[in-house]
Amino acid sequence: MDTLINRLDSRDTDFTARLDRLLSWEGVSDAEVQHRVTDILARVKQEGDAALVEFSNRFDRLNVSSMAELVIGAERLAQAYADLPADQREALAVAAERVRVYHEHQKPESWSFKDEHGSLLGQKVTPLDRAGIYVPGGKAAYPSSVLMNAIPAHVAGVREIIMVVPTPDGVVNELVLAAAHLAGIDRVFTIGGAQAVAALAYGTETVPRVDKIVGPGNIYVATAKRAVFGQVGIDMIAGPSEILVVSDGVTDPDWLAMDLFSQAEHDEDAQAILIGWDDEHLAAVEASIERLAPTMERAEIILTSLRERGALIRVSGPEQALELTNRIAPEHLELSVANPEEWVEGVRHAGAIFMGSHTSEALGDYCAGPNHVLPTSGTARFSSPLGVYDFQKRSSLIQCSPEGASVLGRTASVLARGESLTAHARSAENRILD
Amino acid sequence: MDTLINRLDSRDTDFTARLDRLLSWEGVSDAEVQHRVTDILARVKQEGDAALVEFSNRFDRLNVSSMAELVIGAERLAQAYADLPADQREALAVAAERVRVYHEHQKPESWSFKDEHGSLLGQKVTPLDRAGIYVPGGKAAYPSSVLMNAIPAHVAGVREIIMVVPTPDGVVNELVLAAAHLAGIDRVFTIGGAQAVAALAYGTETVPRVDKIVGPGNIYVATAKRAVFGQVGIDMIAGPSEILVVSDGVTDPDWLAMDLFSQAEHDEDAQAILIGWDDEHLAAVEASIERLAPTMERAEIILTSLRERGALIRVSGPEQALELTNRIAPEHLELSVANPEEWVEGVRHAGAIFMGSHTSEALGDYCAGPNHVLPTSGTARFSSPLGVYDFQKRSSLIQCSPEGASVLGRTASVLARGESLTAHARSAENRILD
Repeated sequence: MDTLINRLDSRDTDFTARLDRLLSWEGVSDAEVQHRVTDILARVKQEGDAALVEFSNRFDRLNVSSMAELVIGAERLAQAYADLPADQREALAVAAERVRVYHEHQKPESWSFKDEHGSLLGQKVTPLDRAGIYVPGGKAAYPSSVLMNAIPAHVAGVREIIMVVPTPDGVVNELVLAAAHLAGIDRVFTIGGAQAVAALAYGTETVPRVDKIVGPGNIYVATAKRAVFGQVGIDMIAGPSEILVVSDGVTDPDWLAMDLFSQAEHDEDAQAILIGWDDEHLAAVEASIERLAPTMERAEIILTSLRERGALIRVSGPEQALELTNRIAPEHLELSVANPEEWVEGVRHAGAIFMGSHTSEALGDYCAGPNHVLPTSGTARFSSPLGVYDFQKRSSLIQCSPEGASVLGRTASVLARGESLTAHARSAENRILD
Repeated sequence: MDTLINRLDSRDTDFTARLDRLLSWEGVSDAEVQHRVTDILARVKQEGDAALVEFSNRFDRLNVSSMAELVIGAERLAQAYADLPADQREALAVAAERVRVYHEHQKPESWSFKDEHGSLLGQKVTPLDRAGIYVPGGKAAYPSSVLMNAIPAHVAGVREIIMVVPTPDGVVNELVLAAAHLAGIDRVFTIGGAQAVAALAYGTETVPRVDKIVGPGNIYVATAKRAVFGQVGIDMIAGPSEILVVSDGVTDPDWLAMDLFSQAEHDEDAQAILIGWDDEHLAAVEASIERLAPTMERAEIILTSLRERGALIRVSGPEQALELTNRIAPEHLELSVANPEEWVEGVRHAGAIFMGSHTSEALGDYCAGPNHVLPTSGTARFSSPLGVYDFQKRSSLIQCSPEGASVLGRTASVLARGESLTAHARSAENRILD
């Protein structure tokens, strides 16, 4: 029989090497992709709408003659929402409200204080003027992602939220449009790929330039985002989705198998790993996987993902499990253990932590409240979940009293002259009181 | 006479076009630079220390045979600090303490709350494990930048802070080493360029891999940072420094001229702009510039910068000045006006706001407290000053009560089935109580 899922054991001499291979991931942006993206960006920058029409016809197999045909208005979005079956409409509304409430807790406040000289120092928080949300078309078009990307922008106070979503072969996803309506998106353009990123970064006659582009996409989208980074803000460059489950052996193996499947079913590159220290329990989880996998609608994707990138890892105990968790820095961490509060203290790197056996990742993906846009491929070492803070920025505030300017002027003068910046020094010295 | 400084008037028909030309800036990373950087990154990734030694010898004109010669230890840093003249040592210490106190105010707190089902939702804030600070060598080696980059990392709780600084022709900047000591930097490597970025991003036998790279550099450094972005965190890609002064005509024209010089003296690409609506005042500022510029040590750089990129802009009044300010989104904004508090309300985009005629930018550059690493080239539209938040990241926390998981499971199930993700649905349904 083929391997069902990789089995690793921390006692094996080749453990580290095997784990490294399993975890390694590089989004391949080869010279050919780079070249095509550079060309697309330049064309859209120069030709605007005309280039968007041409690229959309070519890449999405459309037959439109102007940008007007690539715009979806507010009524159409409202209609999509109204036409949903009641259970979907209600579920979307419940999810949106919980996501909104959670993100309200994230809002940073402006602050200031006065120093001993009466000078004011502080920081002012302001929202972006305009944000652009990229939503993939085709098989990875998820209405939940529309909510997760747009709601934090709304909570942040962004004035205008633009969405782009490609419609390959003209196919529109009604759930995505409905979610856009619910999330209060102002305008939708049915464009995608590097050309959509270019339109949002530079602006065209029809598409307004935005201040930040968020949302996942294929390798062309990722390459384009990297290229325009700096002229416009971008979120992270996302890799395949992953889950790390730590199990102390108490949770039902069938539940754990299904939790692993819920990650593996995303695509063949998705990664589902479970760590445990109870041999019998690990065997039971493997048996559940074997029994349940064939019953899944997306069995083929799941089995490929588990075989290529999945693993059951046997470690010596809780301490080693925690050490490995911090090394992996997973996007999703399910602590399927009896006392997750105690574990959380020691977790240094993870996008989202699902605590206890009742808290499956799927609940967080849709409606628990926290964002499901999370740092992948170990980037939780330095990145955060998408949040309100991604749609705001800060300005430092400094207001020196005459006395404060005089005192600081002496210090600044010494340091500026040490750097041979004498205009700096004289500018500071001008404020020194006699 | 050559133009001393550009004069723009918002009433002119070509005003917008001239302003756009003046503001436009693109860091040129041509194919040749790209190619060389790609090669350097690959070599360091593969060959580690050996490549660092080779590149440092070649680009910095050194003659070392091993990485051991490119490491500066803690005692050497302490010595540099001890050997400083007393006034410089004191000034650095005062600046460091003020920067530390200001950044303490920036620390975000972890938070959580319980929803109506008793489920816990929150966010946990943790520091990065290790940060790398790039400090340019040669003419742009500023000890103040060492403080501004390292202190927020310390306040954030970063475990280890690494510094890299090239030493072209073997020349070491004692003030930079002294600042590194004061800022509590753990290790210094005298490497620079794309090779230093590669070492920090990938790690070598001697240089540990970091989680985030911050600090300014030339076009090779900027190109390398863009390339490794995603495998490691990076700060912004900085353009030339700029100041926008808004003057209501009350501030001494000599002070304003010197404030403009303090920006222009950085380099020929630096940008100094003053906006006003009082013709006599604008003429007085121009006269001050003309009279004072020849007295400056860096007169040549200042005059080139003012001629090529500087401007005095005449607008119709305060309202238009504010509108223009938001359009420019300056790195440094000096509100040299009588009532700066009222102005601040309307400023949507600026890196740092210097309020009132006593608050010159130079004070903020060195010792007021706020960070001097600020978003340039209009990126204040979406970016913030470097801060404690740049050295921390967040993990979402979700702990569902059995009741909460059951209620959320029903919503998640509907949404997951709407997205054809049935493993997600079944994972959620497993938690529904009978």
